[in-house]
Amino acid sequence: MSSTVIPQAQPNTAALATNSKHFPLDQWYVAGFSTDVQDAPVGRTFLNHKVVLFRTGDGQIAALEDRCCHRALPLSCGTVEGRGVRCGYHGMLYGSNGECLEIPGQDRVPAKAKVKSYHVREQDRIIWIWMPRTDGAEPTMQPPHYPHHDDPRYKFGTGSYHYQAPWQLIHDNLLDLSHLGYVHLKTIGGNARLHMNAPMSVSVEGDMVKVVRSMPGSTPPPTYKAAWPFTDLCDRWQEIEFHLTHLRIWTGAVEPGTDAIDDPLRGGFHMRGFHGITPETENTCHYFWSMSSNKHPEMPENIEAVIEQTAFTFDEDRGVIEQQHANMKAFGEAAEWVDIHVDAGANRARRIVNKLLSQQQQEPT
Amino acid sequence: MSSTVIPQAQPNTAALATNSKHFPLDQWYVAGFSTDVQDAPVGRTFLNHKVVLFRTGDGQIAALEDRCCHRALPLSCGTVEGRGVRCGYHGMLYGSNGECLEIPGQDRVPAKAKVKSYHVREQDRIIWIWMPRTDGAEPTMQPPHYPHHDDPRYKFGTGSYHYQAPWQLIHDNLLDLSHLGYVHLKTIGGNARLHMNAPMSVSVEGDMVKVVRSMPGSTPPPTYKAAWPFTDLCDRWQEIEFHLTHLRIWTGAVEPGTDAIDDPLRGGFHMRGFHGITPETENTCHYFWSMSSNKHPEMPENIEAVIEQTAFTFDEDRGVIEQQHANMKAFGEAAEWVDIHVDAGANRARRIVNKLLSQQQQEPT
Amino acid sequence: MSSTVIPQAQPNTAALATNSKHFPLDQWYVAGFSTDVQDAPVGRTFLNHKVVLFRTGDGQIAALEDRCCHRALPLSCGTVEGRGVRCGYHGMLYGSNGECLEIPGQDRVPAKAKVKSYHVREQDRIIWIWMPRTDGAEPTMQPPHYPHHDDPRYKFGTGSYHYQAPWQLIHDNLLDLSHLGYVHLKTIGGNARLHMNAPMSVSVEGDMVKVVRSMPGSTPPPTYKAAWPFTDLCDRWQEIEFHLTHLRIWTGAVEPGTDAIDDPLRGGFHMRGFHGITPETENTCHYFWSMSSNKHPEMPENIEAVIEQTAFTFDEDRGVIEQQHANMKAFGEAAEWVDIHVDAGANRARRIVNKLLSQQQQEPT
Repeated sequence: MSSTVIPQAQPNTAALATNSKHFPLDQWYVAGFSTDVQDAPVGRTFLNHKVVLFRTGDGQIAALEDRCCHRALPLSCGTVEGRGVRCGYHGMLYGSNGECLEIPGQDRVPAKAKVKSYHVREQDRIIWIWMPRTDGAEPTMQPPHYPHHDDPRYKFGTGSYHYQAPWQLIHDNLLDLSHLGYVHLKTIGGNARLHMNAPMSVSVEGDMVKVVRSMPGSTPPPTYKAAWPFTDLCDRWQEIEFHLTHLRIWTGAVEPGTDAIDDPLRGGFHMRGFHGITPETENTCHYFWSMSSNKHPEMPENIEAVIEQTAFTFDEDRGVIEQQHANMKAFGEAAEWVDIHVDAGANRARRIVNKLLSQQQQEPT
Repeated sequence: MSSTVIPQAQPNTAALATNSKHFPLDQWYVAGFSTDVQDAPVGRTFLNHKVVLFRTGDGQIAALEDRCCHRALPLSCGTVEGRGVRCGYHGMLYGSNGECLEIPGQDRVPAKAKVKSYHVREQDRIIWIWMPRTDGAEPTMQPPHYPHHDDPRYKFGTGSYHYQAPWQLIHDNLLDLSHLGYVHLKTIGGNARLHMNAPMSVSVEGDMVKVVRSMPGSTPPPTYKAAWPFTDLCDRWQEIEFHLTHLRIWTGAVEPGTDAIDDPLRGGFHMRGFHGITPETENTCHYFWSMSSNKHPEMPENIEAVIEQTAFTFDEDRGVIEQQHANMKAFGEAAEWVDIHVDAGANRARRIVNKLLSQQQQEPT
Repeated sequence: MSSTVIPQAQPNTAALATNSKHFPLDQWYVAGFSTDVQDAPVGRTFLNHKVVLFRTGDGQIAALEDRCCHRALPLSCGTVEGRGVRCGYHGMLYGSNGECLEIPGQDRVPAKAKVKSYHVREQDRIIWIWMPRTDGAEPTMQPPHYPHHDDPRYKFGTGSYHYQAPWQLIHDNLLDLSHLGYVHLKTIGGNARLHMNAPMSVSVEGDMVKVVRSMPGSTPPPTYKAAWPFTDLCDRWQEIEFHLTHLRIWTGAVEPGTDAIDDPLRGGFHMRGFHGITPETENTCHYFWSMSSNKHPEMPENIEAVIEQTAFTFDEDRGVIEQQHANMKAFGEAAEWVDIHVDAGANRARRIVNKLLSQQQQEPT
């Protein structure tokens, strides 16, 4: 599975003070996939917080501030043992709650020898981290469930990308799949006009945005053909759900004349994408994706190709989005955006983010 | 021909507001050579303006702001078709005048869907761009002519360099060829003392500076020998014309006892350099050069060597100038320059640039 | 010998004005080892001063401001000849005192054609540079002596590292060798618990800090075994002297039952480290080290292994310290350090640096 090395981020400590202006807090964000954290500590920055993820001896996931309180070495440069993570400089050992358990060569551990801890949950093969408004505050809800990783009808693969672009540009990209016809011709694209003219419905339920597009009578794009024996045309659907910290995208196609394109029980070829998008800083983010797909009995190896091509497709998106962001910076904030028809879903999602940011600016902590 | 990849510049948008303080405007600057722009759009930054260059179906060159008005992707990431340039994200098509001609999937194109356009002219195999004081203003003169690219007596090659240094440092370098004896010993250098002691005349006509140096009885340097069968010594000349946006340098040598060194109709070996120097930002620039040279009947392949060695020579200059600029930044503006005899031409050119900048600061737009 | 290329630093000219706030001045700092400066000029930045080091025809070392006063090219881009260093752009020649001796092609050398010079001394195979509070002021003392490079009982090797970290983080590292058990297990480490629990004495004499630790009954670590035929356990000592601009570290071990661990005339295996640590800027530094060790008659080639492993060990330190510094920047100055028992020596050294800085802030120049 494609997975890029995440470079060490340099969070802007000035920005940290204004996190509540930039990121909705009191939310479960995706910290990675279960397989990302094994025997070694993993350092990642979420919402300007440098965090080390590790597993204690019982396999429980833990997350601490990534900084030894002694001389500031990242704990992610250290080692993991049963009781916690040990600093790689002078061996101070920290437990899951951030308290220093041991200072080698010193009997007493002073009370102030501790680091901040974060609430984390591992569920559905996803690691979630609670980013609170108030340091140390308890989560006020459960992390979302994502059933498809453990659904026996599907097989999935994952990838992690680091983006030199703010998280909302990825929301925009995923909520408007009309770009497939221009950006992804080699994989999941298909006919550009068909994409641009596909009927699209946008609805909002609470803080969730749903965009549905249908493209009956489509020529199956390369990835679809690689995975499913479509004979000629197919009826394609795209169902996108924006949740604040991740998107769920259910796309696929049936042979015309079989199931209805909008029947949730439809057969055919399915691609269920999970897209965890977590800000790293104001201008960078993590993109943790999984793709779950169903095997055709005659093409059982199809899923490997689907995941490979998904990784390739998402790399194309990264190229576009990072160029877009660099250009936005070059032209500055005064350069306005002209909206077109495809932006309906993305703009609803932006309104939800803005509403949450505005609320947390007004509410006392 | 040697041609470096021009990295994506990040113009300082704050600086853009003060362009008239840093760059003479209402001028034709060199945007590149004709061969630079073929089937794909080309993104370059001139005077802090990010520009996309492309050709429409009739071969006409066009230049637009390099930013789709929809979601800010550089248009240079898109594709060119008969009517214009199409954005690579959602397919918006722009004509030569910057108006959006088509929004796929949408009937109406809103009036504000347009981008800035620039006046460009293609002439003598050079692409010129008009950089106006007032957005969209018409050129008030024609671009300069450069006849030597189409002179049948010459053959030419071109190169494009990106410099991490402000444009005036290249002016300085080219207006003072005494550096040849220290920097370019391997190609066009020759004896350092001879260069430093060569009589030099400097004259100014309007906004043009002319520097003429003659070095009779010189040992022909390596490039001269590679291109022309000099038997022993040669009489060398260097004639440099500074025009605001480019320099024309006519150097060469005759066998002693044949033509006079200062006769414009002299024979012998000729190198005619075109040096288009266009600011990218305050601290970076483009250097578009061509070298036209004449074939000796007995050494018809000489010109290839001349151009190869010219590229090597100009790379040596880049090394020196970028080190110079880095050192200027390190020492700061308070560190003064001590003038010496060779600076006469360069200082005149700087006075002309300063005069133009001062004028445009005073004149109302 | 391992020796990294030192990249061209970009001293912060604003910071230069406040050098006396950041660096103790009127001190001899290490500019490098004698072997570093041979036929070519060497450019290095010390305490935000860009300096070129070179040797005149008589082999004398000289140090000038690394900037030709004509057009600011670094003199380190030029060439060295008998009388001085010649600029690589237009050939101006500078003598050891910074005066321009010759301007090719010009009879008169103006009085202002000169650059700043620095006092340098070469002694014990080390080049020392005097960094004065007042430009051009004479040294008020002699540079320190270091006898071990010329001690016939020892053989030594050197290395130079460039650090992306401020110099005091290296002081901290060297004054607290308890980190050996966590950072250097592959070379000079040994048992972590033994290191952390070793009795340590810290004493201060004037501006010198001395830290002594003894570890009788230690398992010899890999480097010790490679260099000396220890049969089983050994009695190890670590004696560290912090002097403002360098540290002297005498470590080693004797066979138990032979000499006393604290006898200055003890035999056994000796490693004498010289650690010249010179700030480049507030956030970067040079680390010039040498390691002198004694040959065992039965293992005469041991010293090569000692030096190779020393270079490897110091690379491990660099990794840790640069990560530490990056993390300090990320978390900002508000993130406090919790002291533990091993910090006693390092904290004394920091107090001395702070005292000197505070004194020079108060004293008039």
